[in-house]
Amino acid sequence: MAQAFSAGRDESFIVRAHGGGGEMMGRLIKEHIVAALGNRTLNELTDGAVVPCDSARLVITTDSYVVQPLEFPGGDIGRLAVCGTVNDLAVMGGKPIGLSLGLIVEEGFSLERLDRILASVASAAKEAGVEVVTGDTKVIEHSSDDGLYVNTSGVAALDDSVNVGFSHIEPGDAVIVNGTLGDHGMAIMSVRNGLEFETVIRSDAAPLNGLIQDVLSAGVNVRFMRDATRGGVAGVLADISQETRLGVEIHEERIPVNPSVRAAAEMLGFDLLSVANEGKMILVIPGDQSEKCLQVMRRHPHGKQAAIIGHTYDVDPPLVEMVTRTGGRRVVQRPYGEELPRIC
Amino acid sequence: MAQAFSAGRDESFIVRAHGGGGEMMGRLIKEHIVAALGNRTLNELTDGAVVPCDSARLVITTDSYVVQPLEFPGGDIGRLAVCGTVNDLAVMGGKPIGLSLGLIVEEGFSLERLDRILASVASAAKEAGVEVVTGDTKVIEHSSDDGLYVNTSGVAALDDSVNVGFSHIEPGDAVIVNGTLGDHGMAIMSVRNGLEFETVIRSDAAPLNGLIQDVLSAGVNVRFMRDATRGGVAGVLADISQETRLGVEIHEERIPVNPSVRAAAEMLGFDLLSVANEGKMILVIPGDQSEKCLQVMRRHPHGKQAAIIGHTYDVDPPLVEMVTRTGGRRVVQRPYGEELPRIC
Repeated sequence: MAQAFSAGRDESFIVRAHGGGGEMMGRLIKEHIVAALGNRTLNELTDGAVVPCDSARLVITTDSYVVQPLEFPGGDIGRLAVCGTVNDLAVMGGKPIGLSLGLIVEEGFSLERLDRILASVASAAKEAGVEVVTGDTKVIEHSSDDGLYVNTSGVAALDDSVNVGFSHIEPGDAVIVNGTLGDHGMAIMSVRNGLEFETVIRSDAAPLNGLIQDVLSAGVNVRFMRDATRGGVAGVLADISQETRLGVEIHEERIPVNPSVRAAAEMLGFDLLSVANEGKMILVIPGDQSEKCLQVMRRHPHGKQAAIIGHTYDVDPPLVEMVTRTGGRRVVQRPYGEELPRIC
Repeated sequence: MAQAFSAGRDESFIVRAHGGGGEMMGRLIKEHIVAALGNRTLNELTDGAVVPCDSARLVITTDSYVVQPLEFPGGDIGRLAVCGTVNDLAVMGGKPIGLSLGLIVEEGFSLERLDRILASVASAAKEAGVEVVTGDTKVIEHSSDDGLYVNTSGVAALDDSVNVGFSHIEPGDAVIVNGTLGDHGMAIMSVRNGLEFETVIRSDAAPLNGLIQDVLSAGVNVRFMRDATRGGVAGVLADISQETRLGVEIHEERIPVNPSVRAAAEMLGFDLLSVANEGKMILVIPGDQSEKCLQVMRRHPHGKQAAIIGHTYDVDPPLVEMVTRTGGRRVVQRPYGEELPRIC
């Protein structure tokens, strides 16, 4: 059924790629959503919106979760929702004030399973040091076996001292990642494909606000942060290059990857740069602060494998390139958007 | 399929009534959601959570919308979402700062229809004087023909002068409604049942923040406000009685109802007190300010048919009673929660 819609690439209907975090989704957002609702704040298209409130600034963000399966090694839809929303607030430089939890549940869904997922929401929220302050529950007829969709929205306070964004990035900045790539996406795909490896691939879903606060408190002049979810690191770097008109060069050998994740990606034919993470972010900071930043990050549980994977530089036309293990260079493309449906 | 789950009232599974705004839903929230996530703010179970932010107070709220059909006389899921969230903020006394928009769309959904719904979101937001500042889009496989689920969350600033809540209600307070009851629910049910009346029944979906600001600015000492959505006015009054331990007496003849809505309710066997509204609220204010409040409300487009429908009083045990047209009295029960599925 779904194939019939997407095969023809009929431009009049929603196709899977519209939700994939790639080019198609970018067009949906710009040509339809922003076209209808556009305003100065929304048009920024950042992970969270910065809005004034009296003399302070707030960050507001929202995410819906439709991941399948609902439970997977390393997490479940509840943990994913809390971490994703906390991270969207944190990479904007915000300190979370509160989360909301919207549940859409199918009739016939097991209450025991719901309790398990709610316990996971509670545990992730505790880990992030934030509370679910309000919620909403809707019940729909049983039809898809999806069982549960979750929306988490969040509000954070933005400290005066924090100023992150594309416009602060300069040539010669270091590009840092806080750990191994692709764990979440490959955990989901391995479960779906029934793959077994010596080590179970676990999702990296984790709240990054603590790690980010450590970096900011250490006085690192963070210019830009973004969590590398749908579209992966490739999507984040493509955005950086597009918005700054700078080149980004990364080095394949410096990119941390779990061996079992690499094996799964090779077996299934995925490029780990495009695979979704749920506890990984890209930081852009001044090149001369990169070693200091790395030291701070490696002291935190979610930054133990942090690495400087590349840098920004002046080049025309601006593009993202990777120096491969064999010394070659390849252009890193923005994912088109259909690689990994229902990953978050 | 769904019947098989709900017929037996097996306590281990989600049934439709868990989402209906009545007793079953109250139990789901208390015994599962609050049990897992409870904290001082969440436990209040108000329309929006009040959280401190520096010296100010914020209101945070969230709502998911699963209404069927997506478009109906007087509105659509987009207008409903904006009005519902704005109203949840406004009845807490908050001035909306920004809304988020989370879309879960089925593959194959018409982009033209999506554009129409987004235009409706934009128009309702403009009417309410608030912006959609951030959003999220997910695509799921086509399975249910529901097409689209919408989450709107919102943030508002709470003025120091505003103090509304159950605890402020006193015996002898006036109970006011801003207009006719049951329009939204009966609009949806008439479409679903293919009913035709001389006048098309239109949903009352409307943002109430302007009307509420007028009342507050006029110096009315508002003690409590709540929009009468799922569970209707009966649900709101049951909450008032339960939380204040006061009785509430209302008069059937004073309750504004559109004739075609009354006809539809009689034909389909619904009690309009339990039917959902999307542009109606209950206000509780000091009895001696009720005429003044009514004058202010009637000057606003969403308050033209405002009416004092009853009052609070000391009685043991506390209950909600309606004096009928014929002079009898009947107890107004809290709706159980299955009357009107997928109404919002």
